[in-house]
Amino acid sequence: MRRFIVIGQRAAASGDFLLHDLPGTSGRLDVLLRCLRAALLVSHGVRRDTTAYLVLLGGTRAPRALRVEGSIAEYLRPDERSLANLVRKALATAPSGPEFAAIRHGLAIADGGLDSVLADLRHATPYVLEEGAADVREQPLDTAAPAFFVGDDLGFDEVTRNRLRGVGAKPLSVGPMSLHAEDAIAIVSNEVDRRRAATG
Amino acid sequence: MRRFIVIGQRAAASGDFLLHDLPGTSGRLDVLLRCLRAALLVSHGVRRDTTAYLVLLGGTRAPRALRVEGSIAEYLRPDERSLANLVRKALATAPSGPEFAAIRHGLAIADGGLDSVLADLRHATPYVLEEGAADVREQPLDTAAPAFFVGDDLGFDEVTRNRLRGVGAKPLSVGPMSLHAEDAIAIVSNEVDRRRAATG
Repeated sequence: MRRFIVIGQRAAASGDFLLHDLPGTSGRLDVLLRCLRAALLVSHGVRRDTTAYLVLLGGTRAPRALRVEGSIAEYLRPDERSLANLVRKALATAPSGPEFAAIRHGLAIADGGLDSVLADLRHATPYVLEEGAADVREQPLDTAAPAFFVGDDLGFDEVTRNRLRGVGAKPLSVGPMSLHAEDAIAIVSNEVDRRRAATG
Repeated sequence: MRRFIVIGQRAAASGDFLLHDLPGTSGRLDVLLRCLRAALLVSHGVRRDTTAYLVLLGGTRAPRALRVEGSIAEYLRPDERSLANLVRKALATAPSGPEFAAIRHGLAIADGGLDSVLADLRHATPYVLEEGAADVREQPLDTAAPAFFVGDDLGFDEVTRNRLRGVGAKPLSVGPMSLHAEDAIAIVSNEVDRRRAATG
C-alpha cells in the first residue's frame, strides 16, 4: 500500500468553514482537498492501493487527522466542493481519542496530529517531499509500502520537519520547479506506478 | 512557450451553470478548471511561459474556446470556485468571431472550437496525450514550443482524434495508469521542466 500524508499548518480541524469560500475561511483546506483527489482518484476510479491522511493543525479543534482508505472508500468525487462536504461531515463528529476511529466506509478521524498518523503507519517507509532534495527518479523507493509526507502551501514548520527527521523520513524532490502539493503527489505516484510496472 | 489545450466534449460554452454544482450543471467544466490550474499555476506563482486553452463543446453557445496566457494573466487562484467564476464571467461576453478576442488581461475568447485554437498555435509542435502511446520520457520533445492536447473525462471523440491526426499531433503517454487529465498535465509539464533544466 502507498500512503500520502498532507500536513495543513492552518487547515481547519473543525467544520465551521464556508463551502463557497474555502480558501478564505478554512485555513486553505482547499489545498489539502486537491491533494486528496490527486492521491486517491484516477480516471473513472479510486486507487485501491492508496491511503491518504490529512493532518489539520488549524482552528479550535486542532490537532486532528483524517484518514481516507482507497481500498474501501465510497462516493469519492473529484470536485473540491464534494470533497469539502465529505470532510466537513467528518469533522462534525464527536472527539474520540488519538487513534483513528471509523466514521463511515473508508473514512476515519483521530484527535491528534502527526503523532496519530505516525502511530498508524506501521511498517511503511517514510519519505518527505522537499524542494532541492535528491531526485525521486534517481533514488531507490520502497514501492510496496511507501509513505510520502507532503507540506501545504506553507511547507513544513520546524517542529514537523524535526519530527519527520526523527522517524528517518528520507527527503525526495520531484524536479526543478516549486510545485503545488497536489502536482507533486501526482508526479510521485506516477513514479511508483512506473516502478511497479517495470518490475511486473 | 508551452501550451496545453483541454477539450471538453460537453463542457458548457455558456455561463449558465451553478457554482455550487459544477459537476452536475456545467458538462464537467470542473474537469477543465482543474486542468487550467495544473497547466498554469505553480507554488506561489504562475507559469509565465505557459498558455492554456479550454475548448468548450457543450451547451447552447458551443463551440467556444477560452485562452489564458500565463505570461500576462492576473488574479489566477487555484481553487475551483474562483476559476469557475473567472470562466463564467468570460463566457458572459458577446459573440466576437472565430479569432481570439481579449476580454481582460491574459484572458481571451473565440467563437469556435478546435479550429480556433489550431489557428492560434502558429509554429508550436503538437502532441496528444493518449493512453498506451509512446512514453513521454522516452520520446524527443520540442521543449521550446510544445502544444499538448488533452481530453476530458470522456477522452477524445472521433472527429477530434482525426483532426489532431491531420495536423500531425504525435501521441504520447505518461505511464501505465489511466489518470485524470490534470495529473497527466502535471506529469508532462514536469518532464518539460526536467528537460529544460538538463539542457540549461
